[in-house]
Amino acid sequence: MAQKPSIPKGTRDFTPQEVAKRNFIFDTIKREFKKFGFRAIETPSFENSETLMGKYGDEGDRLIFKILNSGDFLKKADKSALTNQDSLKLTPSISEKALRYDLTVPFARFVVQHQNEIDFPFKRYQIQPVWRADRPQKGRFREFYQCDADVVGSDSLWQEVEFVQLYDAVFSGLKLEGVTIKINNRKILSGFAEVIGEQDKLVDFTVALDKLDKIGEDGVVKEMLSKGIAEDAIEKIKPIFGLNGSFAEKIAAIKSILATSEVGLKGIEELEFIQNAISEIPLKTANLDLDVTLARGLNYYTGAIFEVAAPKNVKMGSIGGGGRYDDLTGIFGLKNISGVGISFGLDRIYLVLEELDLFPDAVVDDVKALFINFGTKEALYSFKGVNKLRANGVNAEVFPDAAKMKKQMNYANKRNIPFVILAGDEEMKEGKYTLKNMKTGEQDRLTLEEIISKI
Amino acid sequence: MAQKPSIPKGTRDFTPQEVAKRNFIFDTIKREFKKFGFRAIETPSFENSETLMGKYGDEGDRLIFKILNSGDFLKKADKSALTNQDSLKLTPSISEKALRYDLTVPFARFVVQHQNEIDFPFKRYQIQPVWRADRPQKGRFREFYQCDADVVGSDSLWQEVEFVQLYDAVFSGLKLEGVTIKINNRKILSGFAEVIGEQDKLVDFTVALDKLDKIGEDGVVKEMLSKGIAEDAIEKIKPIFGLNGSFAEKIAAIKSILATSEVGLKGIEELEFIQNAISEIPLKTANLDLDVTLARGLNYYTGAIFEVAAPKNVKMGSIGGGGRYDDLTGIFGLKNISGVGISFGLDRIYLVLEELDLFPDAVVDDVKALFINFGTKEALYSFKGVNKLRANGVNAEVFPDAAKMKKQMNYANKRNIPFVILAGDEEMKEGKYTLKNMKTGEQDRLTLEEIISKI
Repeated sequence: MAQKPSIPKGTRDFTPQEVAKRNFIFDTIKREFKKFGFRAIETPSFENSETLMGKYGDEGDRLIFKILNSGDFLKKADKSALTNQDSLKLTPSISEKALRYDLTVPFARFVVQHQNEIDFPFKRYQIQPVWRADRPQKGRFREFYQCDADVVGSDSLWQEVEFVQLYDAVFSGLKLEGVTIKINNRKILSGFAEVIGEQDKLVDFTVALDKLDKIGEDGVVKEMLSKGIAEDAIEKIKPIFGLNGSFAEKIAAIKSILATSEVGLKGIEELEFIQNAISEIPLKTANLDLDVTLARGLNYYTGAIFEVAAPKNVKMGSIGGGGRYDDLTGIFGLKNISGVGISFGLDRIYLVLEELDLFPDAVVDDVKALFINFGTKEALYSFKGVNKLRANGVNAEVFPDAAKMKKQMNYANKRNIPFVILAGDEEMKEGKYTLKNMKTGEQDRLTLEEIISKI
Repeated sequence: MAQKPSIPKGTRDFTPQEVAKRNFIFDTIKREFKKFGFRAIETPSFENSETLMGKYGDEGDRLIFKILNSGDFLKKADKSALTNQDSLKLTPSISEKALRYDLTVPFARFVVQHQNEIDFPFKRYQIQPVWRADRPQKGRFREFYQCDADVVGSDSLWQEVEFVQLYDAVFSGLKLEGVTIKINNRKILSGFAEVIGEQDKLVDFTVALDKLDKIGEDGVVKEMLSKGIAEDAIEKIKPIFGLNGSFAEKIAAIKSILATSEVGLKGIEELEFIQNAISEIPLKTANLDLDVTLARGLNYYTGAIFEVAAPKNVKMGSIGGGGRYDDLTGIFGLKNISGVGISFGLDRIYLVLEELDLFPDAVVDDVKALFINFGTKEALYSFKGVNKLRANGVNAEVFPDAAKMKKQMNYANKRNIPFVILAGDEEMKEGKYTLKNMKTGEQDRLTLEEIISKI
């Protein structure tokens, strides 16, 4: 019966220290979400397969974890698929449910399903795990949390302003200073494609452009050429490769490029609105920067596009992203609901905070005091003490066995418990307890009230 | 493409109000877990199938959700099972992972896998969802949370005392007064079987006895007879059917029944230790009661058995349970680790709090103030205001669009937002904002500082 236990690849156990650190991030994000008026919803871990399938492209469909039907599932199986050993074709007939792949599609489903109970604009946040049958690698897992905030039912640009402020509030709350909130607008990208006469190659164009910081200008040009974008078209757009300076200077530069594109100028107007608002209500620690190469899920976004980069001294991919979409709920039959949302990359934020040593020492909300156990009579006296400490909000415990002193002190040391409390005959006679500071070694015989105020 | 969206049967969406109420329960439980020195771990949602299968009996195996292997899963499928259309036999060859069925087996796996990093006694808590392919019915779901606290690596009876105190602390924290913590001991049940000479029918005996409050004395006797327990044996045990009075009186009554059973007397000794400790450190609002019919998962428990009943004026099954087990980790090859643990039934506690109207009004941590949006210039002024409120910890928002006043006020009403804040030319000139109390209708023109201190 004995097995060498292990867990599936791409999944993780979290120790108490890790859970405490992760909760520090979650709690900071939640606190700011709430301050901004977002409210939590939760959706089931698995959805009906038809809710998820076809929403993430073929690759996405492949990476969705499917749940095998219960009982005698072969009874309803597609017989020809069985005979032909066609796994892909067999799947829908033996699996009706699938694990959540992201929080966006379930959110869209939620909005449509509950549209009559919801007061729009609906500001929701959702922090739940998702699952992807991706090849596991460093920093990529098969189970991980997403932290999303979205507003649906308002096309006001103030929402974009709010999300920039929200990013700033969360990262400032985490004491992670100097992140860069990169912003772009789908309309700018459409404008570029328009002015170079390659509107029909918008996706190829932006996919290539998005790689600028990875493959450099030459690489981008090469990729564009290979996709059939004309050389003189690329020539027209070259100034955007070397764009720098302030937000306003970049805007000025692209304004001249986009002068003839109505949609492009609309994009500039939107960016300027956001930039103006942010300059009136300054960010605490983040920087807002225009990045006209930013595309992310272009087919999805219709207006603003966001991405957050860690401080420059940390090597890390984006730690957040989002944007405006205009027809999220259309796939479930509810048209014309504009939305905008952002997401936080929990695992990467964790790694950044770890690397910069930004987790507060007190993040592990562990016990403050351990009562040493000297035997039944003394233990009862200690349990009376611990009861009072807890009633006053102090995390504390009594060592459960009257083990050797050394073992008990070792336990306190290993757990980083800052105080031990000892009580023998003398203390019991006086109604007091001896408090020992594990760091300084200092000892005092005190009443419980004195101990509570001291620790 | 449009579909009528729905979710799988037995699963639930949670609205913001429901999430807030559930979190109120979770937070109360966590706060007390931490006060008692328990620390959180988390394990993956799915485990390798061999970790779970065979641990919950045949019925359990059937109710475990299996995850279909990714890709061309038929390639590795058991060909003879395929040919014979044998779903049961086919499953292990097309599914290697399964969703967590409870938190106990993953915890045992965790302890064994991480035994070298753990300082024993290890006090862990775990609050995560589990999944069961049970037939959904009122109050029974296919996805639900379990909230468990366990100590492994100590056989001290003080742990049992602590868990009684912990139950009391949590239910007192929830203001759910008058719950009954029922306690029994496996050794008492073994003692009964011993003194009536039916040791080999221990399970049948206790399963029947456990039904006393459902099927009555006659029903229990009938079931025992049907299982082959002798009539004169049942006669000997009859006094325990009508046991009442105080804890001490019940103990006295069963002491005489168990006088000749060593194991039975050991059980009494353990119960008396716990009862004595609790009488020295009285419970805040719960009652401790001896229930010698309590068995729960008998095969599993080796010492104390706990079950918590809701206050008598509420019709509800048990809202918590647990007990002592002596070889939990043995299934994974780590022997002789004694443990004891308890569990809280989140969904039932929710229903009880709902029925008794015990959720605090403030549980929905919603926005305190909505700034009315009168247009771009005024909105900017309002966004400056909301920024300051949030920086001072106030949850607040600005209505995103300059919609009709009535629409904005309706939104505030529906969301139960207690204050709206209005700012037009006059307010902007004075650097003030008009605060309106939505309940009383009272209005004041105030500075932001005054507003912050007022709300």
